[in-house]
Amino acid sequence: MADYQAPLRDIRFVLNEVFDAPNFWASLPGVADNVDPDTADAILEEAGKITAGTLAPINREGDEQGCQWNDGEVTTPEGFREAYKTMAEGGWVGLGGNPEFGGMGMPKTLVAQFEEMMQGANMSFGLAPMLTAGACVALDAHGSQQLKETYLPKMYDGSWTGAMDLTEPHAGTDLGIIRTKAEPRDDGSYSITGTKIFITWGEHDMTDNIIHFVLAKLPDAPKGPKGISMFLVPKYDVNEDGSLGERNHFSCGSLEKKMGIKASATCVMNFDGAKGYLVGEPNKGLMAMFTMMNYERLGVGVQGLGAAEASLQNARDYAMERTQSRAPTGPQEKDKAADPIIVHPDVRRMLLTMKGYVEGGRAFSTYVAQWLDVAKFAEDEERRKQGDAMVALLTPVAKAFLTDRGLDACVIGQQIFGGHGFIREWGQEQLVRDTRITQIYEGTNGIQAMDLMGRKVVANQGKYFELFAKDVAAFIEENSDNDALRPYLGQLAAALERLDDVTETVIKQAGENPNEVGAAAVDYLDLFGLTALGYMWAMVVKAAAPKAQDDTSGFYTGKLKTARFYFDRLLPKTVSLAEGIRSGSGAMMAHSAEEF
Amino acid sequence: MADYQAPLRDIRFVLNEVFDAPNFWASLPGVADNVDPDTADAILEEAGKITAGTLAPINREGDEQGCQWNDGEVTTPEGFREAYKTMAEGGWVGLGGNPEFGGMGMPKTLVAQFEEMMQGANMSFGLAPMLTAGACVALDAHGSQQLKETYLPKMYDGSWTGAMDLTEPHAGTDLGIIRTKAEPRDDGSYSITGTKIFITWGEHDMTDNIIHFVLAKLPDAPKGPKGISMFLVPKYDVNEDGSLGERNHFSCGSLEKKMGIKASATCVMNFDGAKGYLVGEPNKGLMAMFTMMNYERLGVGVQGLGAAEASLQNARDYAMERTQSRAPTGPQEKDKAADPIIVHPDVRRMLLTMKGYVEGGRAFSTYVAQWLDVAKFAEDEERRKQGDAMVALLTPVAKAFLTDRGLDACVIGQQIFGGHGFIREWGQEQLVRDTRITQIYEGTNGIQAMDLMGRKVVANQGKYFELFAKDVAAFIEENSDNDALRPYLGQLAAALERLDDVTETVIKQAGENPNEVGAAAVDYLDLFGLTALGYMWAMVVKAAAPKAQDDTSGFYTGKLKTARFYFDRLLPKTVSLAEGIRSGSGAMMAHSAEEF
Repeated sequence: MADYQAPLRDIRFVLNEVFDAPNFWASLPGVADNVDPDTADAILEEAGKITAGTLAPINREGDEQGCQWNDGEVTTPEGFREAYKTMAEGGWVGLGGNPEFGGMGMPKTLVAQFEEMMQGANMSFGLAPMLTAGACVALDAHGSQQLKETYLPKMYDGSWTGAMDLTEPHAGTDLGIIRTKAEPRDDGSYSITGTKIFITWGEHDMTDNIIHFVLAKLPDAPKGPKGISMFLVPKYDVNEDGSLGERNHFSCGSLEKKMGIKASATCVMNFDGAKGYLVGEPNKGLMAMFTMMNYERLGVGVQGLGAAEASLQNARDYAMERTQSRAPTGPQEKDKAADPIIVHPDVRRMLLTMKGYVEGGRAFSTYVAQWLDVAKFAEDEERRKQGDAMVALLTPVAKAFLTDRGLDACVIGQQIFGGHGFIREWGQEQLVRDTRITQIYEGTNGIQAMDLMGRKVVANQGKYFELFAKDVAAFIEENSDNDALRPYLGQLAAALERLDDVTETVIKQAGENPNEVGAAAVDYLDLFGLTALGYMWAMVVKAAAPKAQDDTSGFYTGKLKTARFYFDRLLPKTVSLAEGIRSGSGAMMAHSAEEF
Repeated sequence: MADYQAPLRDIRFVLNEVFDAPNFWASLPGVADNVDPDTADAILEEAGKITAGTLAPINREGDEQGCQWNDGEVTTPEGFREAYKTMAEGGWVGLGGNPEFGGMGMPKTLVAQFEEMMQGANMSFGLAPMLTAGACVALDAHGSQQLKETYLPKMYDGSWTGAMDLTEPHAGTDLGIIRTKAEPRDDGSYSITGTKIFITWGEHDMTDNIIHFVLAKLPDAPKGPKGISMFLVPKYDVNEDGSLGERNHFSCGSLEKKMGIKASATCVMNFDGAKGYLVGEPNKGLMAMFTMMNYERLGVGVQGLGAAEASLQNARDYAMERTQSRAPTGPQEKDKAADPIIVHPDVRRMLLTMKGYVEGGRAFSTYVAQWLDVAKFAEDEERRKQGDAMVALLTPVAKAFLTDRGLDACVIGQQIFGGHGFIREWGQEQLVRDTRITQIYEGTNGIQAMDLMGRKVVANQGKYFELFAKDVAAFIEENSDNDALRPYLGQLAAALERLDDVTETVIKQAGENPNEVGAAAVDYLDLFGLTALGYMWAMVVKAAAPKAQDDTSGFYTGKLKTARFYFDRLLPKTVSLAEGIRSGSGAMMAHSAEEF
């Protein structure tokens, strides 16, 4: 497998040239206080080094070895413990954390770039810092001052990791029916009892303590989702002086055997009267958990993006080196027995499809991160509210679209390798196996689509959607005189109109038939994502075009050419998606059980 | 995982009701002599029993154990040796074989159904009978009478297996550059030296002998594909009395570690002056090998179909049983905490997408098999030629489209399981891993698309395509008064016109620019496959509609409803594909190496 290289040139292009991050950050006092452009750039440089130099080299062997369970203890693959220590010492776990408790307070626009590199280098490993950072977000938002002071600094500095414990054997998507119980104790803590499954990094040997965030029901809790509370349940209790106390009453019962991300531990966790601390208010745990999950969702989308980038690098190298057959227009390298396979139009189609999704996807994740920063840091309340709405709307798209295209990119990359892609040696098959989970966890992509279509679009009658549509329309309007953009703005406007029209149709139909939301959801999210990436590619063209004329590196001219491919070959998928959605739920709901 | 059930009801429907196989067979004397409808039906029944009863139960454990290499010997997973013996004794390996040498002479329309069940039950295992049958086809077509008499009966009766040895480390798609040599010996045999890789079932312990069909170059061979000869290279030479003689000079150097089909042995084969026998004429080995490969290609398509059916069964069972959340229209099973997930429109969308492809795909593989039977058995020479042309045209579509949709169906099935689909327990992740190879081997799906677009469409200026288009157009014409078909014939005609139009465009553009073929190929094959399945679903509607009125089982009404889903949601994909193809090769060929 090609060694993973952090795509710093591309990341800097998106951040600085497409989104003008330095000026954006300067406009947000909470950010400007913490980071200047030079520091940010140095962080990117270091992120590139540590991810490519420390995490990527243990990725393959981690997959081979996997985690080992022995009587409740979990041993991580060789190098994982040391790598986590290295990451911790570099301050990477708390990169976006609250400075009040030792976090570095970096904006999401920057943190997302680091996350992409980390996930592209080693997804199994990357889950541990990612889940820890997510747990910190929830704790920071909902925990008591005491809990925050006790736990956040140690999680930010990498001494301890975080885990989220939601799923039970009978309750995945439907958390309202969980059975884990929390009984109040005299000392104000709670006794937690129940079984959780699919707990990523629920147990391991990388750090001395593991802080679980567990969803459970209080004795008098209402039925359903409104009766769920969140508890902080540490593996070791923490004494007042900060030292570790008693081992808590829970343990890892077993590890799942999985298709991929094998170097990560996916645990069954048995809580048997474990001591826990309420985070936030009773029965409002689901809201607290969603604070964390919403943060993760972009993070999972970025996992798909990172894997897609790794696949692109791998396949591009192979396509340049592997010789096989001659170009359709005749031999290109006459001194060799065959031409490098990159001469073949279909190999180019595959690479450009990957590039279209990866580079467009990177711009999109940065676009979403920008709105996360607006929501968190903007001085103006109206602007923050706008940020909240955009984040709410775009997060499910980022999670599902980037992971769907992530799998596509890994499968396409594998295809470029032919038979060599199916064997372990080249790393492509691991990328496919690892990336597949990103479409499933943190809410399946079907659930993301329902969230988008139902809660984020239909429920507010398209109010959030209008914000996005206006943003795109304003871009089209503002750039109508841009020569480089002229070939694409018409197509982008048509895609936006298509999306707008379908949005209106579904909102209308959903009023008459609740099944319309679910029937449209997945195709709608796809249509939304493809249109959003069309917008991103237009922004890329705008940023690259002025520099393309004097470009001898091929960087900017390449961007323009890939944009053309996106508009020629990928954006047209929106036409069929819209046609499918317009057919409504009829064909989906007609079958009786026997008819399936 | 749900136990695999042979889908006999569906297979009988396609064979007898959609394609009227009994009358079709009666029209072909070579078939009618060998099989009557009752025998054929009994064969299906037995095929269902042996595949579900013998092959499916060793599928999962086979994946866990894999094949073990030890000093050139390969040990198969538990039960494989016995299973091959059982298959052999039942005559299944020679089901479609030449009766002159002990084959059963069954038509492909019947054999394809058996193959689907075998591959759906256990793809790793299924490769052994499949490759053996394919090798027999090549030997029967090109070998000398003596070779045929010596080897065919033992391969048909399952005593020995066959393997095809094409690929070398530097030569996969491009067989013209192979380096394996064949030196003539005094006794008329040849001495074969070279290294072959990716040799499926090249070594194993299931049978006493393994017959390799090896591509190699004679000393005076012309360069390139026209200098390749095919040799039969047995593991053990065969004495005149039929007993096994000396161990040949080749061995298995190692096994590949793979993503899937782990129970099958993928061998590196080292030939070191091995004794081989020329099959067919010198330097015409590629043609002989393509006889075998063309046969396999439908077989590989059927692997995709079989896996898709297994995924559908698995996911359908899960969707009926797993309870999670409530239906959008309110609780359906009030006594339970949640409704079965099949109430959710998006779960139905996933199941129906699978059904659309699986059931339409089964009809399509039978349609192709029918043309194979026409090509082989028709009395009229013109009709046989028509069969040859249709087979040439449709085979790459069947291979690539059925395996692409095969992976889709396995991934979709996995998605229905949520997190449970990612762990080994439910079998879905194995289906995904196993099925992925079908898009790669026997000519990648990109190569199939090039074969279709280049050799089968552009090279003859659409002559073969016209045969297909006329067949569909005739169906539309003949059934214009059919009430049940009325809602669909317009859409089918539009899809056909779209395909026709794109075909014409590419033929025209390819005359000016050779890159247009490769630029269009994959999307064109997809467009072709979707249109062909539209035709198949129309045929299904025609067969099912008259029986739907009195149908209390849901079988026929279900067919009609799934057809509607296909036309509403899947066929519209053709619109975007056509639009993408029409954009031509420009965006694909513009990038220089640095611009990628």
